[in-house]
Amino acid sequence: MLGPLNQVAIAVPDVREAARLWQDRFDADVSEPQPEPDHGVTVVFVNLPNTKIELLEPLGENSPIEGFLKKNPKGGIHHIGFEVGELIPLRDRLREKGVTITGDGEPRIGAHGNPVIFLHPKDCNGALIELEEVTG
Amino acid sequence: MLGPLNQVAIAVPDVREAARLWQDRFDADVSEPQPEPDHGVTVVFVNLPNTKIELLEPLGENSPIEGFLKKNPKGGIHHIGFEVGELIPLRDRLREKGVTITGDGEPRIGAHGNPVIFLHPKDCNGALIELEEVTG
Repeated sequence: MLGPLNQVAIAVPDVREAARLWQDRFDADVSEPQPEPDHGVTVVFVNLPNTKIELLEPLGENSPIEGFLKKNPKGGIHHIGFEVGELIPLRDRLREKGVTITGDGEPRIGAHGNPVIFLHPKDCNGALIELEEVTG
Repeated sequence: MLGPLNQVAIAVPDVREAARLWQDRFDADVSEPQPEPDHGVTVVFVNLPNTKIELLEPLGENSPIEGFLKKNPKGGIHHIGFEVGELIPLRDRLREKGVTITGDGEPRIGAHGNPVIFLHPKDCNGALIELEEVTG
């Protein structure tokens, strides 16, 4: 049921500086910064052979990573994201098993244009987990 | 220079319980628990199509994840691991660029039987990063 690991998201205070570090130290293949105002972040993708790192900097007010960065001013691993099949039946199954879905639990359109939900860390070994519906 | 993401390691207080959760909730393909006394952890591998999650429980005294679990009793994402080529020239290059290697900086044989080093989170956007030499 769990598809590929789509991303490891790392919150950073300055995404341009972080991108330079990944490029300079590791010759990593990094994208240009992409503002995602609907999601309150500016993203840089670090492309790996099998998955990607997403470097996230807060954008605008009430960014979802603002609180995390207050606690972790240098940044840190914020969440991991998996590709899954149909989201609604999986969400309902997870709820039956006692997993808290963040927010109102309704899928939102994520940064990749697909529906996503987030599972609360308290029910998932302390890890914030994003599930992204990738079908067809 | 950065190869595939080999693992996302999640520290957990009880690796058997964590394995059951991943299996029960996600039908995940989980291994039997493997004690790694040389590394102070018991590991369960959650196999994904493109990489793996490693669930780590402290084993014995002075486990390297003991302090992390004291701060994060429910667990949390502990580190991410990348496959790289020759480790010594890369380590020396990283040091020149101001990256702190944990411990004495000498590669140790990691849980997969290959030499590994860890980069200090303070120099890596708050993320603890393992580099594993995979050659030939």
